[in-house]
Amino acid sequence: MADQYAQSGEDNRPTEIPAIRWDEPPEGPVLVLLDQTRLPAEEVERVCTDAPALVEAIRSLAVRGAPLLGIAGAYGVALAAVRGFDVDEAADALAGARPTAVNLSLGVRRALAAHRDALARTGDAGQAAAAALAAARRLHREDAEASRRMAGHGLALLDELLPGGGHRILTHCNTGSLVSGGEGTAFAVALAAHRVGRLRRLWVDETRPLLQGARLTAYEAARSGMAYTLLTDNAAGSLFSAGEVDAVLIGADRIAADGSVANKVGSYPLAVLARYHHVPFIVVAPVTTVDADTADGASIEVEQRPGFEVTEIVAPQAVRGAGGGVPVAPLGTQAYNPAFDVTPPELVTAIVTEEGVLSPVTGEGLAELCGRARGVVTGS
Amino acid sequence: MADQYAQSGEDNRPTEIPAIRWDEPPEGPVLVLLDQTRLPAEEVERVCTDAPALVEAIRSLAVRGAPLLGIAGAYGVALAAVRGFDVDEAADALAGARPTAVNLSLGVRRALAAHRDALARTGDAGQAAAAALAAARRLHREDAEASRRMAGHGLALLDELLPGGGHRILTHCNTGSLVSGGEGTAFAVALAAHRVGRLRRLWVDETRPLLQGARLTAYEAARSGMAYTLLTDNAAGSLFSAGEVDAVLIGADRIAADGSVANKVGSYPLAVLARYHHVPFIVVAPVTTVDADTADGASIEVEQRPGFEVTEIVAPQAVRGAGGGVPVAPLGTQAYNPAFDVTPPELVTAIVTEEGVLSPVTGEGLAELCGRARGVVTGS
Repeated sequence: MADQYAQSGEDNRPTEIPAIRWDEPPEGPVLVLLDQTRLPAEEVERVCTDAPALVEAIRSLAVRGAPLLGIAGAYGVALAAVRGFDVDEAADALAGARPTAVNLSLGVRRALAAHRDALARTGDAGQAAAAALAAARRLHREDAEASRRMAGHGLALLDELLPGGGHRILTHCNTGSLVSGGEGTAFAVALAAHRVGRLRRLWVDETRPLLQGARLTAYEAARSGMAYTLLTDNAAGSLFSAGEVDAVLIGADRIAADGSVANKVGSYPLAVLARYHHVPFIVVAPVTTVDADTADGASIEVEQRPGFEVTEIVAPQAVRGAGGGVPVAPLGTQAYNPAFDVTPPELVTAIVTEEGVLSPVTGEGLAELCGRARGVVTGS
Repeated sequence: MADQYAQSGEDNRPTEIPAIRWDEPPEGPVLVLLDQTRLPAEEVERVCTDAPALVEAIRSLAVRGAPLLGIAGAYGVALAAVRGFDVDEAADALAGARPTAVNLSLGVRRALAAHRDALARTGDAGQAAAAALAAARRLHREDAEASRRMAGHGLALLDELLPGGGHRILTHCNTGSLVSGGEGTAFAVALAAHRVGRLRRLWVDETRPLLQGARLTAYEAARSGMAYTLLTDNAAGSLFSAGEVDAVLIGADRIAADGSVANKVGSYPLAVLARYHHVPFIVVAPVTTVDADTADGASIEVEQRPGFEVTEIVAPQAVRGAGGGVPVAPLGTQAYNPAFDVTPPELVTAIVTEEGVLSPVTGEGLAELCGRARGVVTGS
């Protein structure tokens, strides 16, 4: 454990490139994305002038992450409307770009509904396009606001659970501004702790097979000037064993009605390690992540991803093999490659949402929290 | 979990290339190694005609694995003696090729002692060289025999713990014929189960950062015609959770006097998962792995390896970066990269050695087992 608290090379460039932004240069409105496939090697913006370009960016993972995909989908509909393309056609293409991404189709539907309403009300295509853009911007703002509130609730929870400060937080996968209209979910909480001087170290799991931790979370941590250290997923056990982890903070892809949490594969082993070592395991996610139609963990269908993600290293700028990467296993090797795993509610210390903190995690508590969120939405 | 029991592409070539062999072509005696840095892409033999060539092969990891390094070191001394080079000089260079590899210097010392004894006794360089070679061959045979006996004891233990047969075994790192004069340690047990038709599936952890599971264990499993599946280390949690793991079999780099097991990083999280899911966690290692001078797990110093193993992908045939690999994290990222972790005896179901099975794992039991082994050695 010689130097794991040494400072990483920091990268505090003042100009922060947002993951997504609407721009209106003289040539006409565009949607500008930070191309996540080129990170961390290069910060390259990708300019979409129409929905097909955005569909391609979504398919190639240049833009990714549940909340961000919803925002991208809504802006995509607005882009088609503002530029005078067929809005329904664009909406269909966008919603189908990644069929399993629920947020994407939700975002698309929201902008589309605003467009239709305005068109029906005013009969004016310009006003309808403006309504679609306003809906996309509202979704963007709401997501940023949800991040801000999750960060506040999460930081308060950390201070309650770990009164000493100097938090050493372990995180998995990528949950910061690259997946959100704001500063993200779990990462936003760590960032809030960093800003008040109470983050001693962010332990970043590399997150095999696609290395979102190494490529993206390390990038976000470096940009934020955090003290962070990268580790292979299997080295987390050594950190727990040495008493070097004060809390685990992760996001969620879906939360079942009973509080079971589906998240990036590798989350469940961390939950078991956290329980074994009496370390809080905290899930940070907006209430839209709760899926009341999924009763429990067993009902969550886990996406199985292609084996080449494991048998080849798919890295930026790598030599390309059959699956686009560098082969590391014998040809013909079959791989088990679930995208997510499921953590049962009894292993989750708390779920932090923009509406507040749920702890202990129970189905009743979750339903009450979601009801409160619906009340807020209705009342606004 | 759609297709994880599908058959992997098998690679049952009849000619098996041993990890190490002594050969005597007309040009003179040589030591022939299977170059492990080229696996699994290519099976290339590397011919060493003198000790410096072997030192270079050891340094570059063309030959690796604790028991195999001991055998290589002994043959290296014999090679120097047979070819008329300075034996003491060769022994020094070999023993220092990887200073932390205890087995390497043990093997070197054993051949050197045989050489010196014969020289003192006969005064004949030819007879002394023959004695060194005989000592190396004896070590090679003993290691193969220890493998065979561990496999037998381990298989009996599996049959006792899992009477139903159809074992689904999870393993970590590389423990087969590539690290041994025989068929290895944990892998040899899985292979024995395979040969009697009782291995349903070998789950192979890829073993980040150096991917020994993906590169080497998958290679060994394919060569042996086993049904195997490769997974990222963090996907093991999903297999446990789904009830797909009947036992964990791993090797050991060092076992402390209290039964604490140091092994490749990622072993400890598997032990915690195994305990949480009531799955046997079995360590397979020769009694020479027990270090009576190390009292307990806390006394085991864990080697910290270079960060570039994590921040870059070091893969065969990859484009080379600063550390020899493809960068995957932002420049300047600091990594936590312990080579090993330590599993306390209370999480180890059994230790399988060539002298028998120790279960439960206690310091007293371990001392008794080692005493028995010394008795056998003395009596032979």
